[in-house]
Amino acid sequence: MNTFGTLYRLTTFGESHGPAIGGVIDGMPPGIAIDLDRVQAELDRRRPGQSAITTSRREDDKVEILSGMFEGKTTGTPIGFVIRNGNHRSADYGQLRHAFRPGHADFTYTAKYGLRDFAGGGRASARETACRVVGGAFARQALELKGIRIFAYTSQVGAVKIPLGYDEVDPSLIDTNPVRCPHAPTAAEMEQLIRRVKTDGDTIGGIVTCVAAGVPVGLGEPVYGKLSARLAEAMMGINAAKGFDYGTGFDVASMLGSQIIDPFETDSDGRIVTTRNHSGGIQGGISNGAPVYFRVAFKPVATLMREVATVDDCGNPTVLKAAGRHDPCVVPRAVPVVEAMTAITLLDSMIVAGKY
Amino acid sequence: MNTFGTLYRLTTFGESHGPAIGGVIDGMPPGIAIDLDRVQAELDRRRPGQSAITTSRREDDKVEILSGMFEGKTTGTPIGFVIRNGNHRSADYGQLRHAFRPGHADFTYTAKYGLRDFAGGGRASARETACRVVGGAFARQALELKGIRIFAYTSQVGAVKIPLGYDEVDPSLIDTNPVRCPHAPTAAEMEQLIRRVKTDGDTIGGIVTCVAAGVPVGLGEPVYGKLSARLAEAMMGINAAKGFDYGTGFDVASMLGSQIIDPFETDSDGRIVTTRNHSGGIQGGISNGAPVYFRVAFKPVATLMREVATVDDCGNPTVLKAAGRHDPCVVPRAVPVVEAMTAITLLDSMIVAGKY
Amino acid sequence: MNTFGTLYRLTTFGESHGPAIGGVIDGMPPGIAIDLDRVQAELDRRRPGQSAITTSRREDDKVEILSGMFEGKTTGTPIGFVIRNGNHRSADYGQLRHAFRPGHADFTYTAKYGLRDFAGGGRASARETACRVVGGAFARQALELKGIRIFAYTSQVGAVKIPLGYDEVDPSLIDTNPVRCPHAPTAAEMEQLIRRVKTDGDTIGGIVTCVAAGVPVGLGEPVYGKLSARLAEAMMGINAAKGFDYGTGFDVASMLGSQIIDPFETDSDGRIVTTRNHSGGIQGGISNGAPVYFRVAFKPVATLMREVATVDDCGNPTVLKAAGRHDPCVVPRAVPVVEAMTAITLLDSMIVAGKY
Amino acid sequence: MNTFGTLYRLTTFGESHGPAIGGVIDGMPPGIAIDLDRVQAELDRRRPGQSAITTSRREDDKVEILSGMFEGKTTGTPIGFVIRNGNHRSADYGQLRHAFRPGHADFTYTAKYGLRDFAGGGRASARETACRVVGGAFARQALELKGIRIFAYTSQVGAVKIPLGYDEVDPSLIDTNPVRCPHAPTAAEMEQLIRRVKTDGDTIGGIVTCVAAGVPVGLGEPVYGKLSARLAEAMMGINAAKGFDYGTGFDVASMLGSQIIDPFETDSDGRIVTTRNHSGGIQGGISNGAPVYFRVAFKPVATLMREVATVDDCGNPTVLKAAGRHDPCVVPRAVPVVEAMTAITLLDSMIVAGKY
Repeated sequence: MNTFGTLYRLTTFGESHGPAIGGVIDGMPPGIAIDLDRVQAELDRRRPGQSAITTSRREDDKVEILSGMFEGKTTGTPIGFVIRNGNHRSADYGQLRHAFRPGHADFTYTAKYGLRDFAGGGRASARETACRVVGGAFARQALELKGIRIFAYTSQVGAVKIPLGYDEVDPSLIDTNPVRCPHAPTAAEMEQLIRRVKTDGDTIGGIVTCVAAGVPVGLGEPVYGKLSARLAEAMMGINAAKGFDYGTGFDVASMLGSQIIDPFETDSDGRIVTTRNHSGGIQGGISNGAPVYFRVAFKPVATLMREVATVDDCGNPTVLKAAGRHDPCVVPRAVPVVEAMTAITLLDSMIVAGKY
Repeated sequence: MNTFGTLYRLTTFGESHGPAIGGVIDGMPPGIAIDLDRVQAELDRRRPGQSAITTSRREDDKVEILSGMFEGKTTGTPIGFVIRNGNHRSADYGQLRHAFRPGHADFTYTAKYGLRDFAGGGRASARETACRVVGGAFARQALELKGIRIFAYTSQVGAVKIPLGYDEVDPSLIDTNPVRCPHAPTAAEMEQLIRRVKTDGDTIGGIVTCVAAGVPVGLGEPVYGKLSARLAEAMMGINAAKGFDYGTGFDVASMLGSQIIDPFETDSDGRIVTTRNHSGGIQGGISNGAPVYFRVAFKPVATLMREVATVDDCGNPTVLKAAGRHDPCVVPRAVPVVEAMTAITLLDSMIVAGKY
Repeated sequence: MNTFGTLYRLTTFGESHGPAIGGVIDGMPPGIAIDLDRVQAELDRRRPGQSAITTSRREDDKVEILSGMFEGKTTGTPIGFVIRNGNHRSADYGQLRHAFRPGHADFTYTAKYGLRDFAGGGRASARETACRVVGGAFARQALELKGIRIFAYTSQVGAVKIPLGYDEVDPSLIDTNPVRCPHAPTAAEMEQLIRRVKTDGDTIGGIVTCVAAGVPVGLGEPVYGKLSARLAEAMMGINAAKGFDYGTGFDVASMLGSQIIDPFETDSDGRIVTTRNHSGGIQGGISNGAPVYFRVAFKPVATLMREVATVDDCGNPTVLKAAGRHDPCVVPRAVPVVEAMTAITLLDSMIVAGKY
Repeated sequence: MNTFGTLYRLTTFGESHGPAIGGVIDGMPPGIAIDLDRVQAELDRRRPGQSAITTSRREDDKVEILSGMFEGKTTGTPIGFVIRNGNHRSADYGQLRHAFRPGHADFTYTAKYGLRDFAGGGRASARETACRVVGGAFARQALELKGIRIFAYTSQVGAVKIPLGYDEVDPSLIDTNPVRCPHAPTAAEMEQLIRRVKTDGDTIGGIVTCVAAGVPVGLGEPVYGKLSARLAEAMMGINAAKGFDYGTGFDVASMLGSQIIDPFETDSDGRIVTTRNHSGGIQGGISNGAPVYFRVAFKPVATLMREVATVDDCGNPTVLKAAGRHDPCVVPRAVPVVEAMTAITLLDSMIVAGKY
């Protein structure tokens, strides 16, 4: 399955070391003026080589739109796009032809498909997420016309956590530092930690928090298509994601009902709202108009700049040393991917609910 | 959307206070002898009124199979089933006609559909999960024929946590206590906590851990249909679920790559396996043959046995006092539901992967 | 796959000789007052034993609605329903345990599933279409609120054809005769033919024509979800259907472009319309506001009241003589099924197009 | 919906006058050596400008494969491809900015989407079918490995019909003439007719017959996913298709059951087969091992080389004269498209049935 979504659907293709990656956006509402520079800008936020704490591998990641737009507007027909891959030094991958890198998908892909496109991790490469960013960038512009604003940020790296709640964050600060943490002292501490880990040839995990404000009441289908379930599926489909929770999340386990239920009141505009938001903007699987917020945990990148013992595809022991250049922490570059998958999920939910 | 799954599909219907709930299981492999007593036994594990720490409301929950079986075996055609609802005292629900219960789906359903089946929570009632247990019970029997065994247990209630890892648990102990925690002293402590909370008219949250052993290599689709994403969607679709993580889960955020990657080795049978299982049996979204394990966080039940301030559907303040009988902690009864959704997801994944 | 539709979805279950058949309607718009007597009346039009030219087998076919309605209106939640099967004389089917009836699905089901529910044709029985009639009856009432009217009629039996175009038919005459042909002399001729064929122990084929008036402009998705393709799929899924065409249909093969294109004009209300309707109300796969009309060809019933040579499941020759009572011509009873599948397809298309 | 299929899925994008068309093939079985020259050869069969009786517009239609293959074999990951569009003389389309061409999708697209990519018919252009040919060419090579052979041919143009049954045709003769009719005298007559019609500035309709031999028993899902229904949906989704029937098709209407049922016998290999094939290889919606055959009726091309009266998008009368170069008869170029959609449908059905 390389398609995500029900009525707003993203289908992607491409390996990191073939001629191109790309995709098809289907179900885009017609008549929407799209700022293609902003689409490219979101890709640039995900791009390798953007700062000293990401991989030094540089890729251009220029998106070419092939269809679905006419005179600057969407037409309602599918939007095909490609992102050409840069110079691929396949020589680098000689050793990987037979060895299984621990923590990677090499073994499971080989077992599933009976063969492996070993160059650059093939389809399992995080490069695929560039296509999600394109799909999300179109969705985001459609959502903004309805007053929905999405932002994500790095809320934890290693043991370093942002000391602010989701509703205390100033989104304009997110991109002021390479870690994408909207709290300068924490960002500095995270950056130091990532640099230290990198020097050790090691990698480190972290958490992205995402907020969607202005979500209308009524998105999500009860029972199996809960908005929370759709978001969970979307987030857990991102490479390296290991956990998802929304609202008060895992902390609810140790809380009392009396602490956690969000009382209703009528606000000054006569709308029924909750006075707090432990629910994360979703009740019974359906959005209630409060900000939707959730967390996604990312594991440390599995490629270490050290020798690692493993086995080859015959089961014989071997030792791998990573060639190439890799991220010491995936979290800063995961931020735009989390935003993109959120935008796709919300626009899809709006269309399914008949609200777009 | 009241359907879950791609090729093994469960469609359910029914409100807690109508004549019946039920569903259709589609895609059941043919020729499988089904022990219907075991199907009923799983329903009994979910049934209200089963112990002193669940709701004292008693429901029989007898499932009637209407189709899809012939001479004791599945035929490959859809399995229709109904569970008749017991005596529904709709008089109990007078006040609920207009008031929105905090923490419930009353408000969001009303906003979405423009009207509300207020009796008993309508479709948002956890009673729907009885149908999932039926769908899971059929799937489980199919999976067992392939050597797959699923068990879930209560691993946390409030601040009380089981002191055992997923691989230290003895599944035969799970149903030896009403909390469904396979560690007697912890179970006793959890039970005490739930009783105390109940006495206060309050409720409490918790965590269910689930393990699937014997899962073959190769389940899950890369990119958007990762096994981890499917499980997340399945679990987050359960009423009151607020978080999901698998393998080392949220703890990865503060770990180093060198701590977390699972080295490969060749076992005595010549199979390639990992020497530890931080991955939770899933790498690159595809099962690797190690046990799949994950956690689901459940919030405290929103219905308190106390007066609660809220608003009615005109936005006017009102006060609610729960009538009826409710669970002080949903977790023990969520255990069979988690198992059921796991079984459905795994069987579906096997069929999609062409492995059943 | 026992589910039909994208957002308005019908899932059915049940064999003709089990305890019940039934289904789930998902995606029904909320707040629609449903006349359940009309639902039952449509079932009665499909019911066996309704006239001298249908099977003399009598079935009650009383539908019981189990969910999804509250105080007479749909709630937006799924509508579960069952139709109990009458007294099933399974003794009748002894010989069928091993013999493959020619023209039936006995052989293909056995080959596909490795076993067979031989009683009454199992899932391949046309009895399943009763559930489609229920799904269609709900859809029809929703469509009528939007001004859409659907009617089908018998336009051909054997060589006897109605001498009227689809736009010359008076729908109120359809149910004035047992053949459901809205042209009395033709109906009489058809009825005679069916009686003669029945006397011979034989059966005969025919054609149903269906018309949907008031269909709004814009239903159907271009490319793969054309309204014409969805209708074709819906109709060819009905038991015994062998052909589908719409508008001028197969006759276009021998026509010139200059004869067949439908010129546009502006009508007195300022709407753009076509001056004729060779297109059958669908252009480029999308409805254009003109009446949608199409034909479905049905083969003669495969069960003859004669001895028929065949083989058993070991491939040995045997002779079958049909027990039970069967229709000499399926077409009159197929009329409400064609209408039902049309209603389901149109309502689904409206919801997908965001027009309901 | 720009995706076709359940597990073998083709998603396409692109307008005839943008930079490129293309698509994504998802679900391709891994490890299959693909002859890309044969893929291109099938595209060449669909290409405009291939003979004197097709449009004289020349397009290269070179397909570029972007992913999903490694060392000459499929990898199981999605196959992205693009076909660059040639020089588009958008000046030609000035008048079409506002006028609605009769028999085209101009009006319905404008009504549906509120705007129109008027150049070259936009998404409704038959150029999209080139992508189907690519999707079908991959599927065909996979099917051939299982012994399935597909061929289609022109069986009728205007009143000229091939005098051979589907089982009397020599497929090697199909491409020996530009009409793609495997009976030389008929082909000559068809070609003459098309030339005459073209001289008149008119167009003509016709019928394609398709045969799939070697289809295994058991493809197709009973009830709503019948193989016949899937094929009908596939064929009716092709531009200009107006009718579909399989086996004896519409002729069944005037036949008796005793004439049409296909008796079973055991062949010399001990397999159960039918002695004739009115069923078209499908019984109860499931393939029975006999050749699957069906017909698709195509209307005459709507673009005449004459002045045509119509209205513009304000509803005012106007006169159109087609610029550009168009086919006088679409049928010869529809032959490879019918084959492609057949291959896609069959491979998808095999995978869904767990037989690939």
